[in-house]
Amino acid sequence: MWKPDRQHKKPLYIQIADHLAHRIGCGEFPPGSLLPSERKLAEQLDVNRSTVILAFAELRAAGMIESRTGSGTRVSTSKWGATPKLTPNWRRYAEGGNFLPNVPFLRRIREALLQNPQLIDFASGELAADLAPIQEITKLMSEHQYTSYLGYDNPQGYIPLRQALVTYLSDYRGIKATESSILITSGSQQSLHLIAQCLLAPGDAIAIEDPSYNYSLPMFQSAGLRLFRLPVDEHGVQPDDIRSLYKKHRIKMVFLNPNFHNPTGTLYSEERRQQVLDAASELGLPIVEDDPFSLTAYDGSPPPPLKALDSSGSVLYIGSFSKIAASGLRIGWMVAPHSIVERLADARQQIDFGLSIIPQQVVAQFLQSAYFAPHLERLRAQLQFKRDLTIEALNSELSGLIEYAVPQGGLHLWVKLLPDIPDNKLFEEAVKKGVIFVPGSVYGSDASFVRFTYGRAKAEEIQEGIAKFADALREL
Amino acid sequence: MWKPDRQHKKPLYIQIADHLAHRIGCGEFPPGSLLPSERKLAEQLDVNRSTVILAFAELRAAGMIESRTGSGTRVSTSKWGATPKLTPNWRRYAEGGNFLPNVPFLRRIREALLQNPQLIDFASGELAADLAPIQEITKLMSEHQYTSYLGYDNPQGYIPLRQALVTYLSDYRGIKATESSILITSGSQQSLHLIAQCLLAPGDAIAIEDPSYNYSLPMFQSAGLRLFRLPVDEHGVQPDDIRSLYKKHRIKMVFLNPNFHNPTGTLYSEERRQQVLDAASELGLPIVEDDPFSLTAYDGSPPPPLKALDSSGSVLYIGSFSKIAASGLRIGWMVAPHSIVERLADARQQIDFGLSIIPQQVVAQFLQSAYFAPHLERLRAQLQFKRDLTIEALNSELSGLIEYAVPQGGLHLWVKLLPDIPDNKLFEEAVKKGVIFVPGSVYGSDASFVRFTYGRAKAEEIQEGIAKFADALREL
Repeated sequence: MWKPDRQHKKPLYIQIADHLAHRIGCGEFPPGSLLPSERKLAEQLDVNRSTVILAFAELRAAGMIESRTGSGTRVSTSKWGATPKLTPNWRRYAEGGNFLPNVPFLRRIREALLQNPQLIDFASGELAADLAPIQEITKLMSEHQYTSYLGYDNPQGYIPLRQALVTYLSDYRGIKATESSILITSGSQQSLHLIAQCLLAPGDAIAIEDPSYNYSLPMFQSAGLRLFRLPVDEHGVQPDDIRSLYKKHRIKMVFLNPNFHNPTGTLYSEERRQQVLDAASELGLPIVEDDPFSLTAYDGSPPPPLKALDSSGSVLYIGSFSKIAASGLRIGWMVAPHSIVERLADARQQIDFGLSIIPQQVVAQFLQSAYFAPHLERLRAQLQFKRDLTIEALNSELSGLIEYAVPQGGLHLWVKLLPDIPDNKLFEEAVKKGVIFVPGSVYGSDASFVRFTYGRAKAEEIQEGIAKFADALREL
Repeated sequence: MWKPDRQHKKPLYIQIADHLAHRIGCGEFPPGSLLPSERKLAEQLDVNRSTVILAFAELRAAGMIESRTGSGTRVSTSKWGATPKLTPNWRRYAEGGNFLPNVPFLRRIREALLQNPQLIDFASGELAADLAPIQEITKLMSEHQYTSYLGYDNPQGYIPLRQALVTYLSDYRGIKATESSILITSGSQQSLHLIAQCLLAPGDAIAIEDPSYNYSLPMFQSAGLRLFRLPVDEHGVQPDDIRSLYKKHRIKMVFLNPNFHNPTGTLYSEERRQQVLDAASELGLPIVEDDPFSLTAYDGSPPPPLKALDSSGSVLYIGSFSKIAASGLRIGWMVAPHSIVERLADARQQIDFGLSIIPQQVVAQFLQSAYFAPHLERLRAQLQFKRDLTIEALNSELSGLIEYAVPQGGLHLWVKLLPDIPDNKLFEEAVKKGVIFVPGSVYGSDASFVRFTYGRAKAEEIQEGIAKFADALREL
């Protein structure tokens, strides 16, 4: 992001006025649109508010912007729009549409991280940079050519990657699949999106876990689905809850995350897995099994996924490269009956026309390489180490004020706060102190929960981050 | 795709039965689902229909499948589903959802190309493999590291690519943009999808060109939009048509492709550009300008896009790497007011959680490299050469039976057939002869048009391809 140059002989406020004039001239802020507030701009540009006030005065004097008390500062229409030209009411368009905006807290988290990259990050649901197999991938990329073909890919995904996944799924997850039953997607997120948009219709009822994956909630709501919740106890969801939702609301699908559930870390028990499958096959009800974390099982032996036990063909299985290696390649996969794979591959032609070939090649090679197994081993050890650091810090800093279950895999720790503190206040105070996390309310939970993604934080920052969090908590 | 091994001592029908049993066991064809027909399987596997009949008999004898006259062959539920287990009715799910399937002809084209890769391809709307800058990209990839960061990308797109595009847009398209006013997308397709889904609501009316881009039609319909058509004459659409659609239907947006329009090849005249912009600013109506082809202008000087002339801030501009370099990297961009970019970047977190970083790095480097300008020059010369070959072949083979305008840029030739021949018959006959194209009906046009994408065909095959097409035409 642009910042004024303090060494430059041009005064800061003139630099800022010039910069804003440029952005206005480029159409980033069209005639009639609202500029960011003086306070916000001052924060973004790291200057005093008075400097922004001076810059705005410059632009006002030039006729470029207009301020009206109580309604902020807008780009003037007379100068830029030259009556009788009408600029579209972009704000109305931005507020229209089918898609609900994301939960405000998630946008606030993104904003806070952009504004201050120094924050100790327990919020982003991904691996820390030092856990990604960067060296291995660099090595593979230097050894292979990636550019023999650069046209549109098969809409179902790059064939050699699907072939590599047939082996991977059989070796690591006990799932028998064929090339034709696999769809490559942009991470789990796109699998979920395609299912919600293409297999369900507005008004359909579905069941999700409570608490549940934060990016899924607005995504399901954007598709017009009615959401019903299945409480997660220490063994998973209860099959009778599924039966009663089916009876009452004719739910059309059940979304589960049985292996180190996000955010609670719960690992479904074997008995519960079987019971859930029995309920599904009794009702002819599809289960979507989201399985991004299982290979992080700290003891090295994740239980078989529902899909591997699924004798009635009830499970759509979703996997991902993001939480076991690198989220930035954006590679995930779905295993499904052929009719479903065909349908989703067809729909995706309207959405993005398939994925880039290069990252698919990289993932195919990595999964088949001798690097993969040792990488997983290192990953598991490191995650367990970070989990232990986090728990140690929490126990020493917040003993008696918190409750949690110790996760046996995954990236997340779900902590119940015994004092009842408003989400929003705790969050802002923690950000001020230099640490960021995801508040429980984002998952549809009570306000008094917090998700710490220890998998994302740097090991050497964990103690300090938890101490800052404890400071914030004590302050309130 | 799997084919039986003719050298193997196991009889073909047993190989096929084993293969199908494996696919059934893997859940690709769940209990109760329909298997492909004997005729279709025989075609796919390149065997006689009688071989497939024998293979089905094997599976039937093993209780794996059931055939009922008139309703095809299904995977048996008693063997695989073991009553009282119920498999979800996957077919019903596949037929549900918001998303309309693509035009059947587009699916037929995809299928035909998969079945016979030897077809002379005038159908796929992309560059031929030999026009992509494969060597240059290979060289760049060997010179740079791509893996310094492999976490989630900024939802608006990779910052260095947005910076490279600011320069590219200014140098090549006369568009002043800033980093914050650019959104990186998976080709133009995703820009169009995001606009349709996030800025418009079901029931909204929009205007599109007639004929119009083939993948847009179902995509707009899937978003529940009402489509109205603006006829394209040799200079573009008529501004008064826009005004009258606005008056009658309160259209909310106009989608245009003013530079070497797909499929007609039309280049909007300067006067028409200005008139269209005037109509938009008079009505406060947004124009979406899709501009994938302009840099292919054979004379090397494409006219300025609407966006460069847009003094009222009415234009959302869409560009793409696909038609000027390589579609398989899946990189496109949108230039829009900040409020729109922010909205779409937020929504995309629900759809795919951003793009892979690696192809964005590759494109940023290519656009800034010394390879880019010479690549464009070569591309233009080659496309013009292929256009000339196509026209020459058409004139010698079909003189008097066709009409067309000579395109001055782009990849496509839009040909009117004077004899009135049903689309479907001509298409199937041509495929039989070994050549494939897109029939005009796909673009919502009269049946008697054909789009030849000479940019996709190999130069040495053009004469032969057109001759095969002429054969097919004469046969009917």
